[in-house]
Parts: sequence; C-alpha cells; structure tokens
Amino acid sequence: MEDKNQILEFILESPFETILEQIDEIHPVDFLEALGEFDDDPLIILEKLPDEYVALLLDYAEDDEKFNLLSLFSKNRQAQIISEMSSDELVDLLGTLDEDEQNEIITNMNTEEVEEVKTLLSYDPESAGGIMATEFISIKETDTVNETINYLRTMAPDSETPYYIYVVDDLDVLKGVVPLRQIIVSTPDTLIKDIMIENIISAPVDMDQEEVSHIFEKYGFMAIPVVDHNGEILGIITVDDVMEIMKEEYTEDMFRLAGLDEEEKVAGTVIGAIKSRLPWLLVNLVTATLAAKTVSLFENTIAQIVALATFMPMVAGMGGNAGSQTLTLIIRGIAIGEISYENQAGILKKEIAIGIINGLCLGLVVGVLGYFWVGSLAFGFVIGTAMLLNLIVATISGYLVPILLKKVGIDPALASAVFVTTVTDVLGFFFFLGLATVMLQYLI
Amino acid sequence: MEDKNQILEFILESPFETILEQIDEIHPVDFLEALGEFDDDPLIILEKLPDEYVALLLDYAEDDEKFNLLSLFSKNRQAQIISEMSSDELVDLLGTLDEDEQNEIITNMNTEEVEEVKTLLSYDPESAGGIMATEFISIKETDTVNETINYLRTMAPDSETPYYIYVVDDLDVLKGVVPLRQIIVSTPDTLIKDIMIENIISAPVDMDQEEVSHIFEKYGFMAIPVVDHNGEILGIITVDDVMEIMKEEYTEDMFRLAGLDEEEKVAGTVIGAIKSRLPWLLVNLVTATLAAKTVSLFENTIAQIVALATFMPMVAGMGGNAGSQTLTLIIRGIAIGEISYENQAGILKKEIAIGIINGLCLGLVVGVLGYFWVGSLAFGFVIGTAMLLNLIVATISGYLVPILLKKVGIDPALASAVFVTTVTDVLGFFFFLGLATVMLQYLI
Repeated sequence: MEDKNQILEFILESPFETILEQIDEIHPVDFLEALGEFDDDPLIILEKLPDEYVALLLDYAEDDEKFNLLSLFSKNRQAQIISEMSSDELVDLLGTLDEDEQNEIITNMNTEEVEEVKTLLSYDPESAGGIMATEFISIKETDTVNETINYLRTMAPDSETPYYIYVVDDLDVLKGVVPLRQIIVSTPDTLIKDIMIENIISAPVDMDQEEVSHIFEKYGFMAIPVVDHNGEILGIITVDDVMEIMKEEYTEDMFRLAGLDEEEKVAGTVIGAIKSRLPWLLVNLVTATLAAKTVSLFENTIAQIVALATFMPMVAGMGGNAGSQTLTLIIRGIAIGEISYENQAGILKKEIAIGIINGLCLGLVVGVLGYFWVGSLAFGFVIGTAMLLNLIVATISGYLVPILLKKVGIDPALASAVFVTTVTDVLGFFFFLGLATVMLQYLI
Repeated sequence: MEDKNQILEFILESPFETILEQIDEIHPVDFLEALGEFDDDPLIILEKLPDEYVALLLDYAEDDEKFNLLSLFSKNRQAQIISEMSSDELVDLLGTLDEDEQNEIITNMNTEEVEEVKTLLSYDPESAGGIMATEFISIKETDTVNETINYLRTMAPDSETPYYIYVVDDLDVLKGVVPLRQIIVSTPDTLIKDIMIENIISAPVDMDQEEVSHIFEKYGFMAIPVVDHNGEILGIITVDDVMEIMKEEYTEDMFRLAGLDEEEKVAGTVIGAIKSRLPWLLVNLVTATLAAKTVSLFENTIAQIVALATFMPMVAGMGGNAGSQTLTLIIRGIAIGEISYENQAGILKKEIAIGIINGLCLGLVVGVLGYFWVGSLAFGFVIGTAMLLNLIVATISGYLVPILLKKVGIDPALASAVFVTTVTDVLGFFFFLGLATVMLQYLI
C-alpha cells in the first residue's frame, strides 16, 4: 500500500487484528505521508496502531517531528513506545528538546534505558558515538551456527537490520564479524570462529561523522561497528544513517560557499530566508566597501581616462570567477579527503601554473579587446597585464584561503568565498588602476 | 589485514593454499591500495590470487582502472575472471572501452553471458537499468523456508549481497520480498508466501538514477529491485552503488555551478585543469563584455561624477551574491526533488519578497554610506535605489534561470551562473548609471 487515501481508509475501517496482521505492508515513510494528509485528529489513526509500529514511525520521522508525534500519546503509552524505538533515533529525538522536556521523557523510562540513553547523549552528536545505535547482535567465538540461529529467533526484530553478526569475547571486545548469509549457508554445527572474518574495520567512538562516511564510501559496507579505546563494541552505524549525513554535509558545503544557512529550505519562510542570507550579504558589503575604497584612490586617473571604468567590471569579475573555481575544487577536495599534508605543495604549484596559463590566455584576449575598443596599445597592455596578475592572485587565494581557514579550525566552506572575493576585487582594481596611473602619460 | 606492506608480504611469501584460506581477511579496497604501492610487476602479486578474488578486485576498482587491471592477465584467464565479476561492474568496465576493445572482451565470454551483457549495455548508463546488477536471488511463493535455505546453499557467493530474497511467479513477475533475517527466524516448513512482504517498492528499468537515489534516501533501503513494464524483475540496485551516484551527482552540481568540469580532480594535471576551466572563463568574458558595454553607454556621466566608478563594484557584487544565494538554493532543491510543479509559484513569490526586504536593508545601508562618502543626498538615493532594484532582479533571475533551463532540458547547474551574473551585472550597472544620468543635475 502506497496510496495515501488507501492507507488511511485501511486503518480507519479495519479491526485491530487485521491492522496488526497487515501493517507490515505499509512502509512507515508512506504512512507518515498519509498521516500528513489526514485533516482530523491524528490520534484517531495513531491509536489503532501497535506500539512497535508507532515506534517505527518515530524512527523514520524527521528529527524535529518526532517529539510532536510522541506528545500526542498519554504518558503511559509514551513509555511503551519509547522502549520500542531505536536508540539512535531516540537520542535524535531527545537532542531536539531542552533539558526539562528531556527529563519528562526520561522519567518514563526504566533505569537501564535511562543509563543507556544518558551515555548516548554524552557523545558529540556529530561523532560515531552520537550517530550509532546500540541495537546490534553479538555472539561468542565458541558458539555454533545452530546456537546462533536459535539466539536470533529469540531476539525480537528489535536489533537494527542485522546483516552482520558481531563476535565478541567475554569482555565484549570485538573479535570478528559473520555476515548473516554465512550463517544460512553453513552447517548447524559449524563453530562461529571458523566462519568469522577477523579483520574487521570499525569506527572509534569519537571519530567525526564525516570520517565515518568516508569509511562507508571507501568500502561500501552496509554497517560498521563502533568501539571504545579498549576495542569493546558499543554500537553500530548503518548505511541509511550515513546517507543522511552525506546529504547534510554536501548541502552544508554548497550552501555555505554561496552564503546560505545550511538549514534554509526551498519551501521555508521569508523570515527564515532573510535570517539565512542578509548577514552574509552585509559581510560582503564590507568587502565591497574595501573594493570601492581601492577604486576611490584612483578617481583622478579615472577622471582622465573614463574607459577605465568600462573595463573595471571585467578585471574583478574574471578574478572572482577564477578564484571560485579553485576554491570549489579545494573545498570539495578537503571534504572527500583528497588533500593531505604531502600533496599540498604540489597542488599550490599546480594552481599557480593554471593561474599563469589561464591569465596569459585571458590577458591576451582582453588586451586585444581593450586595444581595439579604446584604440590605444598602452590601454591594451594595462588591462591585459592586470588580468594576468589578477588570475594568478585568484588561484593562489582560492587555494590558500580555505587551507589556512581549515588550519585555524574555521569551516573553509563558511568563510572562504568572502575572503577570496575581497582579495581578487581589491588587488584586481589595484593592479588595473595602479598600472594605469603609472602609465598615465601613454594613455592620454 | 589493512597494512599495505603486511598485505604484500603475505601474498609474496605464502603458499597458494594459505592465500586461498586467508584472502577473505583482506578487503579488496585495502588490497588495491597495497597493490598501488608495489613497485615491481603487479602480475607477481596478482598471479597468486584465485579468480574470484581478482574479480572482486575488479568490482571494487575505479571504472577507469578496471580494464588496465584485467589486461594484465592472459586471454584465457581474463575469461575466467570476467565470469566471476558482478554484471553491473562488468558493464561499467565495458562502458570505458571503445567498440573494438569491448568485442575483444566479449569474444571470451559464453553465449549466455554475452546476451546478458549486451542487454545491460543497451540501457542508458544513468538509468536504473544501467546501474543494476543481475545477480539476485529469486524464489517462488510456494517454496518453503527450508527449500529456500537449501537453494541459498547451492548458490555461490555470486549474487550481490542478498539481504533481501525476491519472490516471483512463473513469468518472473515480482510478487514480494523476504528479508534474509526472516528466513532465519522462521520454522523450516513455513511457506514463503506466508512471510513475504507484498507491498514492494521497485524502480522501473528506465528510471533516472537521480530518482533512484531519491527512493533510497526516502525509505532507507539496502537494495531495491528493478522491473520492466510487465513487472518482471530484471536486477537489483544496492545502496553502495547509490552512494557513489549521490556523490557524483552532488560533485557535478557543485562543480558546474562554479564553472569546473565534474571530472576535474585536485590531483589532476595542469592541462586537464586548463581544459576544465578556461572555456568557462571565456564564456564569462562574453558576459563581462556585455557589462562593460553597458558601462560604456554612460561614460559621459562617469566623466562628470567619478564617484560613480567607486560605487560600481558594490552594485554588481552585491547583486551577484544575492543571485548566487537563490540560485544555489534552487539548484539543490531541484537535485533533491524539493521543487515540484505545484510549489513553483509560491517559491517565486517568496524569492521576490526576499529580494525586496534584503534590497531595502542593503539599499538603506549603501544609501547612507553613499551620502556620507560623496556628501550628496541625491547620490545616496541613486546608489540605494539601484541596490534595491538589483537585489530584486537577483532573486528573480536566480529563481527563473535554473527553472527555465531545466524546462528546456539543459542542466541548470551547468549554465545558470553565467546567465544570472550577466543579468545582475548588466541590469545593476544600467539601474545605477542610468538613474545617475537621469538625475545628473542633482548630482553635480
């Protein structure tokens, strides 16, 4: 069932037993969409669902919708639903609340659950510990395949998508992994230690989520275990959570480069959009004022050769474009881990070479254009040389600014564009108008 | 084993039996990295590997490296390796070759394999058919759990990561899906039709890969089946391939917006970078020439009030920034499917409102700045009004340009930035200098 009306009708008109039996046929994502179309009190629908399914809905709901959904239920029912939720999604829910609201939910949980959730909440939300779930299946090396299957049968579908079963020693230290398919194709009395893979790639609990996503991209895993510094397994991270993270990190880089808040949505409010964009435009205004200040130094020169004003946008614009090319490449390179300490010097040299070659080409074209437009060879020389110099400055600053910002701990995507534009505008005008001032006698 | 030297040493010094037994402990990605560090003839290493593992290496290798790796082996061995490869990765390999090279590889395959590969090659590489693998496990509704387990045992680890088992009728039409874990926890005589999920989300074979990745993002699946228009199952797409696609599509958008070829790499060659960037800079030069032409219309006015030249970069720069904010939001919105036919009018209205409000704020700030800088109220009015008008133009063009380009079938990320900059530059200068010309008597 994917059709929204069909889903709503099914829930409204079926007895509880039928719902219980067939609810697995409705994907929680489709159910949430259908619920969004229901104009009446959502509890009419939600009350007819089993706890496990409501917990699934909360798992799949957007972080900022989870609490609203949960709040519809009585305190008593809330506790039951929470105990069925995935730990990582519950922590995401709690992460959107203030301390009072958090405590209100936590008081409904049993001691063991509270302890687990408090530990999870203590991790940085953008670290492996902050995104992991604690529902995983672990067995011992000395277990047999048959024992493992029996154990799996006793487990409710509570554990997150167990494609891998983790093998631990008595101290819960991770020893190996057995893919679920290996369990099926092995004879019942096979020992786990004979079929487990020992070389297991895991994420330390404090690893940054961006690095975690690099592991998934590199190896194509469905899930990886998270371990503490003793090698004890604490949880697992599954690929669906990583896709969400990748999408967020992408949008963040792209938006920050353009001066947008990463939370801004196409369908957001006007006020939200103003808050996202106006501050960055005001910062850019400071940049623009610096550029204007540079131009104003040469007003005497411009008054004598007005054609300089005509060519000003060209110098600044092309410098800005070339700078943003290098900048975008470097920001992306940093994000996907392509830039290391060893290859930095080589990349800078390469960018300088590109600046020189592109600068020579564009300088020549613009120089010839300037010569014919103004009818002065000297003018062509001035604009062509300014273009060459600004293109070199553009690639150097497009490289250096993000690298240096990263070194001092500022997100390069956030602030680089402003700095690079300032450099190419100010120096571009300075080269162009300064050169014109020096060569004034040949230009008039 | 992850350490490169350790891996190389193990292969060089172990007898074939030991390698065969322990090779599973080395992840193909780590092996490829180690091989990259081996200075001697790679065949010394590769010859000691079983065919299945070489096929795995080819599966994990970058598309453009697959053929080089395969070419190292004798024709005879190539055929054996190819028969062990995943069909989707084999098609990716063939996709990088010209027809002669393709035929050379195809001649080594048996008739059945050739037919399969030719069908796969006939799909658009960016469609569901072009990215799917044909190795999946299908069973019948009337099978029992026990029969299914026996069937799984007869299958080599040839099928792609079978977390789901697909249920088909006699005509191979998809009827349902059984998660692998359900097989394990059910009693042996359970009928498949009693445990299968019937509501199954699949991708039509001609669906665009970007839409396929939206399905994965929405539902968090590990794999989805690909079907033809009769509902017959043709293959599956797994989440690891989708992550690769997301990364590519995202980099493409980001790079194209900045005027970079999506293939450019941080560690690429200077020549490659010039080829990627220079054409776009030349296109932008045409834009810049249009802006210059606009300015040149008002050279008389500038000659009388040189301060206009000082403020020119501000009008164009701020318009460009505001335009790129809207543009980036819209491009990302198109990519993640947030923009639909129904919400387009609302988004345009919202962008206009943002343009007006941000324009009023910045116009006021710049107007006051202009007043104090030049000491003329009229000058402040001219620059402030030009700023307001250009900010409105910026948000409108930042919205309209990508939407219209998409409508005529051009990738909005590729060409939008040039058009938006042209509009904001040309109209920005036109408003500012035109208004100044009209109000000249108050400005002198």
